Amino acid sequence: MMDLFFKPESIAVIGASGTPGKLGYVIVKNIADSDFAGDLYPVNPKSDEILGYKVYRSVTEIPGELDLVVTVLPTPKMTVATVEECAKKGVKAVIIESAGFAEMGGEGKVFQQQIVDIAKQNNIRLMGPNCSGIVSRDIVTSIYPITKKVPGGNVVLIGQSGLLAAGMASDIVENESLNISRVCSIGNKCDVNENDLLEYFGNDDGVDVISMYLETITDGRKLVRIAKEVAAKKPVIFLSGGRTEAGARAAMSHTGSIASNARIVEAAVKQTGMIMADDFTELKDFAKVFSTQPLPKGNRVAVITLAGSVGVNVSDLCAAHGLELPKLREETREKLKDMFDTPVSNPVDLYFSVTKIGFTKTLETTFPDAFRDPNIDAAVVILAGFKYTREAVEKKIIQKIVREVGKPVVVCMIVGYNKYKNVIMDEMGKEIPVFPSLISGVKALSRLCEYGIRKHKKSA
Amino acid sequence: MMDLFFKPESIAVIGASGTPGKLGYVIVKNIADSDFAGDLYPVNPKSDEILGYKVYRSVTEIPGELDLVVTVLPTPKMTVATVEECAKKGVKAVIIESAGFAEMGGEGKVFQQQIVDIAKQNNIRLMGPNCSGIVSRDIVTSIYPITKKVPGGNVVLIGQSGLLAAGMASDIVENESLNISRVCSIGNKCDVNENDLLEYFGNDDGVDVISMYLETITDGRKLVRIAKEVAAKKPVIFLSGGRTEAGARAAMSHTGSIASNARIVEAAVKQTGMIMADDFTELKDFAKVFSTQPLPKGNRVAVITLAGSVGVNVSDLCAAHGLELPKLREETREKLKDMFDTPVSNPVDLYFSVTKIGFTKTLETTFPDAFRDPNIDAAVVILAGFKYTREAVEKKIIQKIVREVGKPVVVCMIVGYNKYKNVIMDEMGKEIPVFPSLISGVKALSRLCEYGIRKHKKSA
Repeated sequence: MMDLFFKPESIAVIGASGTPGKLGYVIVKNIADSDFAGDLYPVNPKSDEILGYKVYRSVTEIPGELDLVVTVLPTPKMTVATVEECAKKGVKAVIIESAGFAEMGGEGKVFQQQIVDIAKQNNIRLMGPNCSGIVSRDIVTSIYPITKKVPGGNVVLIGQSGLLAAGMASDIVENESLNISRVCSIGNKCDVNENDLLEYFGNDDGVDVISMYLETITDGRKLVRIAKEVAAKKPVIFLSGGRTEAGARAAMSHTGSIASNARIVEAAVKQTGMIMADDFTELKDFAKVFSTQPLPKGNRVAVITLAGSVGVNVSDLCAAHGLELPKLREETREKLKDMFDTPVSNPVDLYFSVTKIGFTKTLETTFPDAFRDPNIDAAVVILAGFKYTREAVEKKIIQKIVREVGKPVVVCMIVGYNKYKNVIMDEMGKEIPVFPSLISGVKALSRLCEYGIRKHKKSA
Repeated sequence: MMDLFFKPESIAVIGASGTPGKLGYVIVKNIADSDFAGDLYPVNPKSDEILGYKVYRSVTEIPGELDLVVTVLPTPKMTVATVEECAKKGVKAVIIESAGFAEMGGEGKVFQQQIVDIAKQNNIRLMGPNCSGIVSRDIVTSIYPITKKVPGGNVVLIGQSGLLAAGMASDIVENESLNISRVCSIGNKCDVNENDLLEYFGNDDGVDVISMYLETITDGRKLVRIAKEVAAKKPVIFLSGGRTEAGARAAMSHTGSIASNARIVEAAVKQTGMIMADDFTELKDFAKVFSTQPLPKGNRVAVITLAGSVGVNVSDLCAAHGLELPKLREETREKLKDMFDTPVSNPVDLYFSVTKIGFTKTLETTFPDAFRDPNIDAAVVILAGFKYTREAVEKKIIQKIVREVGKPVVVCMIVGYNKYKNVIMDEMGKEIPVFPSLISGVKALSRLCEYGIRKHKKSA
């Protein structure tokens, strides 16, 4: 059923437009530019052709079967009429991207109930209203121009946020290295909700990580049941909007619904094994770490640094986020002794090794020796952004070591991030998560360890 | 006395080298490239000329008075001998950049005590050892190449971190918009310590913000007294290294001293009115906010957004960080009503206004109307990084409004940061702090409000 939304073979766009900039134009253009190879039917009573596609007056005029209908109509009334036509035509999946429904209160609520009723009577699944659609390699129904190919990766991003499948998806596709496969904005979720999508993506073997933003929970018990099942298979990262009184008030005016109580949500999330994010950046950052790094068996971290002070700071942050810095084993310290003028401890200050054998060689030998230590589950590597860092990044040394050793790494680049950002993203970003601050990197790794430990316990 | 370090009229570099890449070369080059207009004397028994400067065999050979001596010698023994020569020559200020002293334990401690003793007997002030020097417009003694002019701004950065006056200072000067005037690495602080510098910069009217990183506290009572005095005049941002057991262990191997107890440090910091940072990025970020934004009188924040979900998330974060989102006044809401199809609340979702009058015009009219509301002390502006954002940034609209209204703003750019980073930094970054995540912006603003409220209470 959900396949109709994500892998349709025919789509109609109601409210399609030939005027660049209009939402109805953007949607047609996005679908045309995506990998969608099926039939595309723009619908508009006043046009004949849009972007080379024949335009139809109404849904019922379209010949043959129709998998998916996307609507962007100026009034809720017109949307209601369209859903009625979809019922007549036998359409089973409709995405309503227009606003003006329950989130506006009053009449908007009535209109929303009307489309829900029609849908129920006719076995139609509705996504939205008040949403920005779907962005994927197969199909892009976003109201925001997506100008590059969607990666077709292993991360999905879903939730009650128009920004998700609009500016944020566009930004990820254009400027970031997060390996998304689908972004889906569910808006007022009058029908299709988080439970449907969690279940759908939970069963999709191509999806390794699910990131989800919710302001309301449709059916708490069901969510707990499904999330538990899914989170046992793959990480589900969860950002809860409206956790505080101020946030709940804001959510009220955003999606028109009373946000779920903070304590209930947090207790539920804990129960399910989902991973809590605190803002939209973490929703992406955590997904980045989970989708690229192997799961650690514990929380014992090696801190690899070139500056003593930064090692101290990271040690403090690790402790604050539940990560341990164990001693390296005797044999590891023996092995590394020659590279250092001082006893090797943790944080491992590579400075001495770098002055002896250079940065690249240090990364190739000293770092993996410490990283392989059986006392170590994961590493925080601090790249200070000095000139020689570039060579190591370009030669993909860290990536290679991580692959060989099979333990997770986060890189924090607190110096030179702005300067080396592009190099990093091009050369390293696809495989290794790079953070501009120590806090963000340590926090992300702590979440990975938390999840890894839980998984390990279950499988033990 | 401290002026000898920061505004010397003559400098000798002991261990100067003519070989590019060597520390003794970098220091001479840095001084030569800085605005330093006094006499520069490289000292090296085996060279005649370095970078066009006449080289002397020893300190005592140098003619005339000598304000400052900088040493980078390969062994602690040679450093001790040099400090003795400085005493003979009547030098009163010495920066020892070489490592190998107390941080190494054992013999290193003995050498450090020797230089301290000589200095005391001869009224010499020592900076270091194990430090990376000073980076300022007047003088750069860093062991790391500083290739651009130091801004000569209103922020100083001091502390027990070699990275500060090396890679970090270089990065700030080259790639960031933080308006620093001086960066000073105090290393093992065998003599000149945080108290000396706090007092010195506290009395310097050109310094508006002091950011400080410490792993140890030399004299807690004195620090509390001085920090209290200074923090009453200007914000002092403080990052404490070794607050946790893991951090303390790391600090032990970094600077060879037992880090101060977390609870004692935090209690002391609270007492003094200093502002606590949690990592090196915050040490810079908070300084950015404090050095560019006016102080708010309270913690009542307007959240200006283009995406409802982001407004909800920021509301939650504000609540979590002690910021309030008050209702706008009746008259403000009346005034803004025409621009919105829904009642205007806080977060102020500009989306409706943008669809009516465009983004730039919205920023010019709708935003300042909300921002001027007497219920509002400060604003978080979320730029979503859509194409039209660029115009607003280039036209410096936000900067202008902030100047006119006289209340502080932080901008969070959670979409498009990577793409627009350079534009933002060039056009906006000097005046308005821009953050890549919601958490980082909200946290920084919360610190500013905290300080503003305290200052306001005191002056009331």
